[in-house]
Amino acid sequence: MALETIAALPITMKENPVQKLHAAHHTLPLEAWRITENEPADDTHFLRETLFSVGNGYIGLRGTEEEGYSGAEGQSLDGSYLNGFYESEAIHYPENACGLARTNQFMLNVPNAKCLRLRLENEDFDPRTGTLESYQRTLDFRTGLLTRSLVWLSPSGRRVRVHSERLVSFRHPNLFAIRYEVTPLNFDGTIQLISALNGQVSNMAAGDDPRVGSAISGAALEQIGEEWQGNFAALTHRTHNSGFTLCTAMQNHLLCEQTFEAAHAQHGKLLEQIFTVKLSRHQPVQLCKYASYHSSRDFPETQLTLLAQQLLAQAQASGFKELAAQQQAYLDDFWQQADVEIEGDDALQQGMHFNQFHLLQSVGRDGKTNIAAKGLTGEGYEGHYFWDTEIYIFPFFLYNKPEIARKLLEYRYQYLPQARTRARQMAHSKGALYPWRTIAGEECSAYFPAGTAQYHINADIAYAIRLYLQVTGDTEFLLEQGAEIVLETARLWMELGHFSSNGATGREQFCINEVTGPDEYTALVNNNYYTNAMAQMHLRFAAQIAMELAQHHAEKWQQLRQTLSLSADEINAWERAAEQMFLPYDAALRIHAQDDAFLSKKPWNFKDTPADNYPLLLHYHPLVIYRHQVCKQADVVLALLLLSEQFSLEDKRRDFDFYEKVTTHDSSLSTCIFSIIANEIGYQDKAYAYFMQTARLDLDDTHGNTHYGVHTAAMAGTWLGIAYGFAGLRIVHELPRFAPVLPPQWQHYQFHIHFQGQLLQVRVDRQQVSYCLLRGQSLQLLHHEQRITLNGQGALEHVPFSFQEPQHA
Amino acid sequence: MALETIAALPITMKENPVQKLHAAHHTLPLEAWRITENEPADDTHFLRETLFSVGNGYIGLRGTEEEGYSGAEGQSLDGSYLNGFYESEAIHYPENACGLARTNQFMLNVPNAKCLRLRLENEDFDPRTGTLESYQRTLDFRTGLLTRSLVWLSPSGRRVRVHSERLVSFRHPNLFAIRYEVTPLNFDGTIQLISALNGQVSNMAAGDDPRVGSAISGAALEQIGEEWQGNFAALTHRTHNSGFTLCTAMQNHLLCEQTFEAAHAQHGKLLEQIFTVKLSRHQPVQLCKYASYHSSRDFPETQLTLLAQQLLAQAQASGFKELAAQQQAYLDDFWQQADVEIEGDDALQQGMHFNQFHLLQSVGRDGKTNIAAKGLTGEGYEGHYFWDTEIYIFPFFLYNKPEIARKLLEYRYQYLPQARTRARQMAHSKGALYPWRTIAGEECSAYFPAGTAQYHINADIAYAIRLYLQVTGDTEFLLEQGAEIVLETARLWMELGHFSSNGATGREQFCINEVTGPDEYTALVNNNYYTNAMAQMHLRFAAQIAMELAQHHAEKWQQLRQTLSLSADEINAWERAAEQMFLPYDAALRIHAQDDAFLSKKPWNFKDTPADNYPLLLHYHPLVIYRHQVCKQADVVLALLLLSEQFSLEDKRRDFDFYEKVTTHDSSLSTCIFSIIANEIGYQDKAYAYFMQTARLDLDDTHGNTHYGVHTAAMAGTWLGIAYGFAGLRIVHELPRFAPVLPPQWQHYQFHIHFQGQLLQVRVDRQQVSYCLLRGQSLQLLHHEQRITLNGQGALEHVPFSFQEPQHA
Repeated sequence: MALETIAALPITMKENPVQKLHAAHHTLPLEAWRITENEPADDTHFLRETLFSVGNGYIGLRGTEEEGYSGAEGQSLDGSYLNGFYESEAIHYPENACGLARTNQFMLNVPNAKCLRLRLENEDFDPRTGTLESYQRTLDFRTGLLTRSLVWLSPSGRRVRVHSERLVSFRHPNLFAIRYEVTPLNFDGTIQLISALNGQVSNMAAGDDPRVGSAISGAALEQIGEEWQGNFAALTHRTHNSGFTLCTAMQNHLLCEQTFEAAHAQHGKLLEQIFTVKLSRHQPVQLCKYASYHSSRDFPETQLTLLAQQLLAQAQASGFKELAAQQQAYLDDFWQQADVEIEGDDALQQGMHFNQFHLLQSVGRDGKTNIAAKGLTGEGYEGHYFWDTEIYIFPFFLYNKPEIARKLLEYRYQYLPQARTRARQMAHSKGALYPWRTIAGEECSAYFPAGTAQYHINADIAYAIRLYLQVTGDTEFLLEQGAEIVLETARLWMELGHFSSNGATGREQFCINEVTGPDEYTALVNNNYYTNAMAQMHLRFAAQIAMELAQHHAEKWQQLRQTLSLSADEINAWERAAEQMFLPYDAALRIHAQDDAFLSKKPWNFKDTPADNYPLLLHYHPLVIYRHQVCKQADVVLALLLLSEQFSLEDKRRDFDFYEKVTTHDSSLSTCIFSIIANEIGYQDKAYAYFMQTARLDLDDTHGNTHYGVHTAAMAGTWLGIAYGFAGLRIVHELPRFAPVLPPQWQHYQFHIHFQGQLLQVRVDRQQVSYCLLRGQSLQLLHHEQRITLNGQGALEHVPFSFQEPQHA
Repeated sequence: MALETIAALPITMKENPVQKLHAAHHTLPLEAWRITENEPADDTHFLRETLFSVGNGYIGLRGTEEEGYSGAEGQSLDGSYLNGFYESEAIHYPENACGLARTNQFMLNVPNAKCLRLRLENEDFDPRTGTLESYQRTLDFRTGLLTRSLVWLSPSGRRVRVHSERLVSFRHPNLFAIRYEVTPLNFDGTIQLISALNGQVSNMAAGDDPRVGSAISGAALEQIGEEWQGNFAALTHRTHNSGFTLCTAMQNHLLCEQTFEAAHAQHGKLLEQIFTVKLSRHQPVQLCKYASYHSSRDFPETQLTLLAQQLLAQAQASGFKELAAQQQAYLDDFWQQADVEIEGDDALQQGMHFNQFHLLQSVGRDGKTNIAAKGLTGEGYEGHYFWDTEIYIFPFFLYNKPEIARKLLEYRYQYLPQARTRARQMAHSKGALYPWRTIAGEECSAYFPAGTAQYHINADIAYAIRLYLQVTGDTEFLLEQGAEIVLETARLWMELGHFSSNGATGREQFCINEVTGPDEYTALVNNNYYTNAMAQMHLRFAAQIAMELAQHHAEKWQQLRQTLSLSADEINAWERAAEQMFLPYDAALRIHAQDDAFLSKKPWNFKDTPADNYPLLLHYHPLVIYRHQVCKQADVVLALLLLSEQFSLEDKRRDFDFYEKVTTHDSSLSTCIFSIIANEIGYQDKAYAYFMQTARLDLDDTHGNTHYGVHTAAMAGTWLGIAYGFAGLRIVHELPRFAPVLPPQWQHYQFHIHFQGQLLQVRVDRQQVSYCLLRGQSLQLLHHEQRITLNGQGALEHVPFSFQEPQHA
């Protein structure tokens, strides 16, 4: 458990004032495949709503009870979200400037379709009144069901059992379903089940925390229609500015041996179907509620209600049981490909599965949507997509569900026109600049020093495309979309940077000024190492694509060159800029400098910084932070991972040692990267400690803001921590290369990767490392420097486990 | 005239694409002591309202007609302003951060007390209907009167003469008066004169131009009372957030040979007194309106109306004529001290007087108020005070009306507590940090990279205090206020900067990171030359004050040290930091580098920048501008002036040559400084051209935004251009030093300075330079290196005029 782990840390780490190792308190039982609460949350209700969210990459429902929450003020946000469904709103700056992002896009809290109320005679069921005689709520990662079972004694003494199940269908993106069963235990009487659609919803108000986001003003959804047809009901809404229409619908199906009455009611924006039935004790009644969202982003506006009706009729015909079976089948398949097994640490095993499951629930897979920083579990960061996708989350899907990874790249292609427009707004005469944060392609960052200035976004996307091609060999994607993205984004560097002989060496080098790197505790710097190194990779990759297309796909190349007005001179300039890219290095310290000025800044006074003053961004003016030598997150250290082959192990050690001392890990993107590099350079204790901080970040709420939504990048970072970190996965000579280590705390671990259409299982235990080709015909891989070939499906190779000291360069 | 001047520019300048020399179009006749319009403005009405503003440093009235403006939409802002009277409002950031300025302060448009309407029988007088048979409006700098004379033929044929005069009393800060005379010329009939107080006012809405400012939301003034007593009427208002009460009052006095009727009316927030009189042709009627503003910022809330009543009764007893005589007397005295005479250029002479007059009208002189960037003439920059005061405007008053200069410094002392609070907010454990922009001492800058980051404000204030002491010898101010300001602001540098051996030299130097210098086209830089050099001056000055106080005012010193917890160690550290201050210098170019990175940035592509794209800030994202080597305004070049003795002439030439090429002068603070240094280094043509751009900046609206208010810093810069520029005034060996040149375009020029309580007149003509001691007993000065002593009041010394080549170092 994490507490012991922290106690076992090396002394140097415990004494390092920067490391804020949270003595994590596990509030839920440590179970490998589910999370369970055994009493209803009150203090942590807001947080639990996030943890118990269910979703399918399109619909996301926070884990609020069907009945709503009657507890303390501020302990609930009853949110339902649709990936890519947003309202846009003008951004007002207190002091304006040219070219600032003009419009924000907010992931909307859409009408609540999961509402269900229960009434026993004249008493409303509310677990926060009366007595709960038993209670359990579970989110199961293998069934995909959110289940609640309880026995409640009402204030006037009626005892009732309530069992409910909720699923958001992975099979049918627009559908979710609830099964709600009620059994009177000590009385005969009239029971009412009231199933509703509630259009009276709004997004939360923003506070001062920039990690939450700004508030959308007023109600974003205008109700323009209601419809009833038997047990089917629908609400239609329109957004004011983004121009979408949304149909929210339900189909209720009461299963009961008795006769019952069904009535309709409408109170403002609330549509209710009220079922009334007289029950005897121990006689159950069950309501199956099928609900759907269809929006004009995906379907013709005039057909939304019709589509809803068809989908829900079909769902009812299948029945809840069949939907649950489909759900399980989908998840069986997913876990067969993606399951990471860890023996020896229950907390970790749970964190790993929880994270994988939430990633699957959050990711858009239609090529028009992506995965938000908070998934579909909360309104933090307004539902925006960031570079988190390409650098953290994309590899998880690439190696575990490559078809989803491709969809994430297609999303970028979809919004290439907006990126071109943004480049023009930023005074670039050609090329494309992807937005720092967005939903539908427009730059939504209202604080440009830590937004628009992060030009590395272009390189991050190119990097993901490069990795995608290495891992999948999907040339068709390259030809249809990938090449255009890479070329259009690459050309921007030439207008952004310039050749200058003003550096320390005196020779002409390509310099990039006034950007912000990944580390947001410095901003608007010159020659950020990460940015320059990634730009170099990007320019080389673009030139290489140009060459390959010219050689092997001449017609496509001609067409692309023409469309993009790409000259040979321009491509030559890319190569020259890459060749002469300035990569700041401090000869005295023998480390890579984060930027031109970083090493000469005043060191942050960690010693006198109270523990309560972290994260620094909530306690110090940006100027104070920017002025000092202090990092929020991995920056150079991230380059050590992404451009691994460019650094010797000694380089990596020195950089790690230096930057670790000045990094607060105030960003949730940081510890996973530090864990991976710590593994590579043989700092096993640190690797483990950083990994633990990543793996249970949301489950233990170590950043204190999971109530606003999960941290999808850190979730994916957990997988990276296993694959890239402990198992040492890199692409070397175009092959997957492993260099596994096994922490002493574990008995074994096991994970999978897809590579070139094949599925490999990697298992590391105390005795050996086993590579097994689960799907495919033949796969080559590297174990350290040893080449292993797996021939035929099921082929298995054991290599005796021996921890190899990292090689010194 | 400016047009010829531009044609006469040196070739190098005309070809320099950066220099946007406006081919100024003089729309008003060139008169030395007044501005006159001979037909009512329509297209330029908004602008003329600014130019014809009258004020007294407390009250400012834009030059809108008494009757209001019925012309085109967007061509009028009928504003009345009170120095220091503001509403505060929370600043909302679309993306929040810790420590950002929380509250804005807006100079309010207060109730309109100058309203006067004229009705002839059933026709409203409106110069924009009917026919204007004659028209003239004049603002006279010697009488201080805004006068309008016209003959109007109404649509139905009534001919009337209207003559009005408006003054805002320099003698009585709370008072203004209007004399309004009407004579029917071709009819007998009923005439109504309606004098009003109009509480239905609001500030203008902001557009996208950051130079204008943000809009205050909604009506800021709540009307809480109305009062009538005979011809006296008063409106009382309260501000919502800043908590002020304001009494706006009028006293009307009709002078007429006929009997007349007087009635009252109230329409909402409009109080009217209606005078009705039957006149025969050629029989004049005259209304004298006395109006006042009293606010609870200055007086007990309960006495405001009473004070208004007393003041207005007294004003009426004096009569308009007497008020006008007082006004003239005040101005006679002012011009005796301050008049700058220029023979040979009418446009310039007019610009000079216009600027001096507006400075006098704009400056607060009660120690609680200051002088806004736009004076009291418009709402640009929301009425905020900036460093413009200390660096540009303060010297004008120091040398021309030193008692006002002291009041400007007292203002800073008044808000020292707020500066201390701000320093704490910015994580400084001690000391004071003055706000970049403010009215009542709180930081109001909503864009910190070009606001709060300009830490040089502290040094600018210290510099002004140093200059004040040099010029006045006012030790009492030093002891009572000055020392405390200088010490408290100096100590901040030690926490802001740090000793670093990371520089090019390898030796330990004091570095200051992450600040913005005067040039707002770079931001958040390291070791801005101006900032570091001014910090050095500041630290030395503070240490020197400490020493002098310890030696000569031991008791006061003990007390101050205790209050401020100042240790000898801290003062020693100041001296060491000053000694080791890092001042960036490029050995190859032999120029002072604007900051660590400036010289290595990509040069701005002036060649391909369309003329319409200036000012750059309105056409390029800040990132684009910041990334390039381009300056908005004098930065290093300003240091060449302020710290003149630290640079050789060769230094100055090289720096000027370099920075001129990259400076757009998009800031109105730029050209005056370039003119001064051009004079010093012998670039006479450039000195003249830059000077012309400064002197008529508002009169010719060369920056295109004078309708939002005059540019007080550039106005003062005009005087600096004469005194510091053409006459070469510097303080050398504690004496005023002159090194005059005479542009070939002029016959002579003449100006004054106060020095150590004495008044010196300096006259430069083709034959000689004459120094005359107008007031005082004995004054020493330097003419170049020649020491001249003037003994006895009226003492006069002629030095043959010879242009001396600037000496090479």
